[in-house]
Amino acid sequence: MRLDRLGETALHRLLAPIGYPKGVPLPPGDDAGAVWLGARALLLKTDGFRARDVRLAGMPEEAVGWRAVTAVASDLLAKLAQPLGFVLSIFLPPSAEVKRARSWVVGAARAAGAYGAGLLGGDTNRGEAALSAAGVGISDDPLPRGGVAGDWVLLVGDRWGRSGAAIDAHYRGVDLAPFPRVRAAGHWPRARLALLGLSTFRRWLSGSADSSDGLAETLWQLAEAAGLGIQVDRIPLFPDVRNYARVAGVEPEELVLFGGEEYEAVVLVRPEGRALVGAWLRSVGLPHTWAGRVGGEGVRFQGARLPRRGYRQF
Amino acid sequence: MRLDRLGETALHRLLAPIGYPKGVPLPPGDDAGAVWLGARALLLKTDGFRARDVRLAGMPEEAVGWRAVTAVASDLLAKLAQPLGFVLSIFLPPSAEVKRARSWVVGAARAAGAYGAGLLGGDTNRGEAALSAAGVGISDDPLPRGGVAGDWVLLVGDRWGRSGAAIDAHYRGVDLAPFPRVRAAGHWPRARLALLGLSTFRRWLSGSADSSDGLAETLWQLAEAAGLGIQVDRIPLFPDVRNYARVAGVEPEELVLFGGEEYEAVVLVRPEGRALVGAWLRSVGLPHTWAGRVGGEGVRFQGARLPRRGYRQF
Repeated sequence: MRLDRLGETALHRLLAPIGYPKGVPLPPGDDAGAVWLGARALLLKTDGFRARDVRLAGMPEEAVGWRAVTAVASDLLAKLAQPLGFVLSIFLPPSAEVKRARSWVVGAARAAGAYGAGLLGGDTNRGEAALSAAGVGISDDPLPRGGVAGDWVLLVGDRWGRSGAAIDAHYRGVDLAPFPRVRAAGHWPRARLALLGLSTFRRWLSGSADSSDGLAETLWQLAEAAGLGIQVDRIPLFPDVRNYARVAGVEPEELVLFGGEEYEAVVLVRPEGRALVGAWLRSVGLPHTWAGRVGGEGVRFQGARLPRRGYRQF
Repeated sequence: MRLDRLGETALHRLLAPIGYPKGVPLPPGDDAGAVWLGARALLLKTDGFRARDVRLAGMPEEAVGWRAVTAVASDLLAKLAQPLGFVLSIFLPPSAEVKRARSWVVGAARAAGAYGAGLLGGDTNRGEAALSAAGVGISDDPLPRGGVAGDWVLLVGDRWGRSGAAIDAHYRGVDLAPFPRVRAAGHWPRARLALLGLSTFRRWLSGSADSSDGLAETLWQLAEAAGLGIQVDRIPLFPDVRNYARVAGVEPEELVLFGGEEYEAVVLVRPEGRALVGAWLRSVGLPHTWAGRVGGEGVRFQGARLPRRGYRQF
């Protein structure tokens, strides 16, 4: 069977368990893999990007390297792991300019630094322009995908809808000059190092997932891991996302639910922890939305079943 | 400037220091990157491969995944780091068969298992067929590139010349059926987990490098890191490598010195450690050759300067 017939979700389900160790801190198919290192969990993650798919109109080459490291960091941070280091594997045609390779590496190094870690080298090979970042992190008690009935669904961050709008603008050829936060979300997404502070409230957290293929897909991943439904009543609809949607002639909810490339975390919080977690998020200035609850059947938004669609490679 | 004008060695020299942290256990440009984790060193490494470059004639798809993990493991082990886990980033066209992706992952998982570690997941993307493995390892006292005048040059393993013959056979269309160990070296190279035992003799070791771009290139890398020359008098010339060379009409020394893809370690040993290290290597059945000494000017083989050429991506 061809990859595009099987589809990405089924492909990951097929591949994730192969060679994955037993008795480790995170199950196969979670946002990162993990092994025990003494009493702590060591997390490892890789993300690949083809340059022609990842580079939006107007995006500088440095942002390509930044994004690769950010994607990995976002997975590690959603699991409450502190990033320790990153590496970068680059493919470029022999005719490519040296400055292009250098820009990717400079962007990756800046991202690593932004997450408190170093860029620990990499590899270069000839081929179609593409790159893969990998990163390692450490956690005392990593947060898996999963959830318990009654959990609050917490959306951390403010790229919901904005990253989707940036991708939409790329394909429609919409000028993003009037939408600086949409452009920033698309070109320079920044993983949330502040998420590490949630470790203090670990006892009230049931699960989490990094959102990079769209909110709907991420909610389905969490629901699947929890074996429960998720009911969403409220999503962040920022004024600039509404404005962009009007200009582009799309529904703003579509951008939030199916946009992709958010690199934001969805966290499931026990009801008794909501007040404290909310107070802490406000104290550190982390934008957030209490979107709904775990329970019921399927993943629904304001009562209607959310289709499981998002960004797909295959 | 184009990548192929600059060349791979200069490219790595340009890129390796970017974002590389200071005060860490290994310098930039070594076989792996490293950071401190308490009193121990955590090593991270990635290696990329384009499928059409890496897959020799007759090589099964599983061997592609095996090789990617092996290349990373070999770097970690040459630094005396215990592999803890690996991840795999795959690029394949949407029309590719699912079983091809699965074979890569199965091969990678088998390799990870052979090195005492798990395959901790990965990522799949559409694109030209290629893959990047990354791996993390831990070491109490990693062995950097480098060396001291008078060190013995120790070649560990028995793929010297054999891996080069396998690559040569691929391009010449020579049948490898009469040369099973050449074929095994080319299709299923196995990193040497036994190298970890050298940690016991760490005080007598000055440096090491993984050889994957050919012995001559590896010796130049070590000489450069040591700031000294290396004089090689003796290289392993296995009977099957000699036979292959005769059949193919090439010089066996060429295969040993410039072959590439060995995934074997070159270790520099203080003279006072030679007897003990040699006895230990024999006791665990690790084939090895005492090839020469550190000192003098340039890298020379039996008095003649070795050109710095080997496998190059650019």
